[in-house]
Amino acid sequence: MAKVGVILSGCGVYDGSEINETVIALLALNRAGAEVIIMAPNMEQAVVNHLTGDAVAGASRNVLEESARIARGEISDIATVSAADMDALFIPGGFGAAKNLCDFAFKGPDCEVHPEVARLIRDIVAAKKPLAAVCIAPALVARVLGIDKLDPRVTIGTDKDTAGAVSSMGATHVSCPVNEFVVDKENKIITSPAYMLAGSISEAAEGIEKTVKELMLMLS
Amino acid sequence: MAKVGVILSGCGVYDGSEINETVIALLALNRAGAEVIIMAPNMEQAVVNHLTGDAVAGASRNVLEESARIARGEISDIATVSAADMDALFIPGGFGAAKNLCDFAFKGPDCEVHPEVARLIRDIVAAKKPLAAVCIAPALVARVLGIDKLDPRVTIGTDKDTAGAVSSMGATHVSCPVNEFVVDKENKIITSPAYMLAGSISEAAEGIEKTVKELMLMLS
Repeated sequence: MAKVGVILSGCGVYDGSEINETVIALLALNRAGAEVIIMAPNMEQAVVNHLTGDAVAGASRNVLEESARIARGEISDIATVSAADMDALFIPGGFGAAKNLCDFAFKGPDCEVHPEVARLIRDIVAAKKPLAAVCIAPALVARVLGIDKLDPRVTIGTDKDTAGAVSSMGATHVSCPVNEFVVDKENKIITSPAYMLAGSISEAAEGIEKTVKELMLMLS
Repeated sequence: MAKVGVILSGCGVYDGSEINETVIALLALNRAGAEVIIMAPNMEQAVVNHLTGDAVAGASRNVLEESARIARGEISDIATVSAADMDALFIPGGFGAAKNLCDFAFKGPDCEVHPEVARLIRDIVAAKKPLAAVCIAPALVARVLGIDKLDPRVTIGTDKDTAGAVSSMGATHVSCPVNEFVVDKENKIITSPAYMLAGSISEAAEGIEKTVKELMLMLS
């Protein structure tokens, strides 16, 4: 049974992992026969009121504890997990990927990636194990592998500003519709736009399900 | 396009809506061509740390705001929604259904149901519109319709204690495996065990997808 690591960044599109994307990926992985290792960094995060969209001044939650809501408690501190524990890695989107796993949402191409997240991405790619990332998560993959001069080929969809920021980190950005995915054969990276473009949960699901299928094909 | 109301109770299995069940239902409804009206009560709730499973002493969150995390902000206060706004109703499970939408988790068969939730369930059934509930949510349907002497026929799976509590509220409990559902033709109610029995997200999905399919058939 293939083991696939899944890095979460909280619970909710505006300050954590995008919930629909995460559950759609977990279901597709389970249906494909994969065992998942869900993990998140043990760190504090800012909080956004998802009813109003406003930041909650002074509020703080723990990323690992909030991610555990999606994982039904079955989750590990990413600091305790290594690339040797898994056959592949999947990173869903949501603003948490750009606010907690890295600070791309605030600093753009100059962002720093959480050290444990950067370590796992580097080790997975170095081990020639496949890595999938959807929505905004390809930005953090671009940052880590761009620094390493690996020229990752990724998509965040069609938004020109974000695509430009991704390219300026040393990646090659490829425009992609919501129901498709982009493959970087050299680095074994699969990316899909998901809610960067999706107008409905079905649209997000189509691209994510295809991404998971391609990830499993790379493992077979 | 059919309109289906979805009542949430927070965000996370131990103190809110079960996230997997909710997303699986939202995806199945969207793929079936339904438009959803997501709603939740505007009330405070207790908080459980999903990493440890422990109650967080003194902590409180707002059910509507937390439910908005799953709904990506597209959610209404249930007090502003009426049965006339929709063609059918779906209620996912999670402890929130038994702690926030009613207090079945604390009081068992003597539980009280949130008045706005009770109103909507009553009005939907009175209007002969179909209602689906999964996991523990059938308990609150049993309470509302049991008081009204409508003898609802529902399942919460196979747990004898919970089934006994459901029966003692004036419902007929039917044992049901995780991948099936139970139909009450008279009251137009469909129920399935989901995570009352599911050992994996795929198992939960099979029963929920069949439940949504049956709900849509009742509308056609």
